[in-house]
Amino acid sequence: MNRAFAIEPDPNLDLVLERVVDVPRELVWAAWTTPEHVCQWFCPRPWSVTDCEIDLRPGGIFRTTMRSPEGEEFPNVGCYLEVIPGERLVWTDMLLPGFRPAEQGFMTGIIALESVGEGTKYTATALHRDVETRKQHEDMGFHAGWNTALDQLIELVKSF
Amino acid sequence: MNRAFAIEPDPNLDLVLERVVDVPRELVWAAWTTPEHVCQWFCPRPWSVTDCEIDLRPGGIFRTTMRSPEGEEFPNVGCYLEVIPGERLVWTDMLLPGFRPAEQGFMTGIIALESVGEGTKYTATALHRDVETRKQHEDMGFHAGWNTALDQLIELVKSF
Repeated sequence: MNRAFAIEPDPNLDLVLERVVDVPRELVWAAWTTPEHVCQWFCPRPWSVTDCEIDLRPGGIFRTTMRSPEGEEFPNVGCYLEVIPGERLVWTDMLLPGFRPAEQGFMTGIIALESVGEGTKYTATALHRDVETRKQHEDMGFHAGWNTALDQLIELVKSF
Repeated sequence: MNRAFAIEPDPNLDLVLERVVDVPRELVWAAWTTPEHVCQWFCPRPWSVTDCEIDLRPGGIFRTTMRSPEGEEFPNVGCYLEVIPGERLVWTDMLLPGFRPAEQGFMTGIIALESVGEGTKYTATALHRDVETRKQHEDMGFHAGWNTALDQLIELVKSF
């Protein structure tokens, strides 16, 4: 029953960041699933995450509050869909905690981790409903933003 | 990691059907998760289900085609969110297979089963985003429809 589905991004609809990083996947997993860690790396500086709530199970909350350099706060709330420790984390803002339909949603995110020697193949995928939403996300700076956040994650876990 | 979340319906937003039925929950589960069974009971007659596709895992497809007495067909596609064999089945049309955001969604459905003697406490919950959607679903005949479908399910599994 827990066979995980194959991730098959559609280049017209989705955005993918794939990098091999020189930190072990257990630490990448910890950085993604621990609120105090998320607050330190999740937003490219000078933006920040001022608050994070995680209930790490399907239907459990994943909530962050992002703060702009000017001090404006942007809350995000969604729920986890799949939690395979150390391997795959899936969440969406289409559903609130407990799987309740959200007023409006934007994406499903998938973090997939594979060990490569002592490092990790890190694949972040954002799934969207249509071409316009993918383009909007790309124009918001998906590639630069997710790369910078990953750099911050690596810097953090190397300090552990 | 697989602790299931508590189901906490909101009377303003959600619809609930709870009945104790005199068939064992293994058979209720089979009726819900086998395409050829779903085709026989899922729609109150004289409506029917002409096609059903099931990939019983989180992110897997749950698709039905309903046909009106006049022969008009209404396809529905969504995906499973949680599959706890014999106990709980959760799906939504807010997400397509593979958890991709859908163009438009309506509800999350939860079927929860508990053994009561040789029978089953059957709780069907429909979660909605707002009061209007709940009312729309109620006006579409949620209570009569889901009760009749359950009667058809019981009739079917008693014929096994």
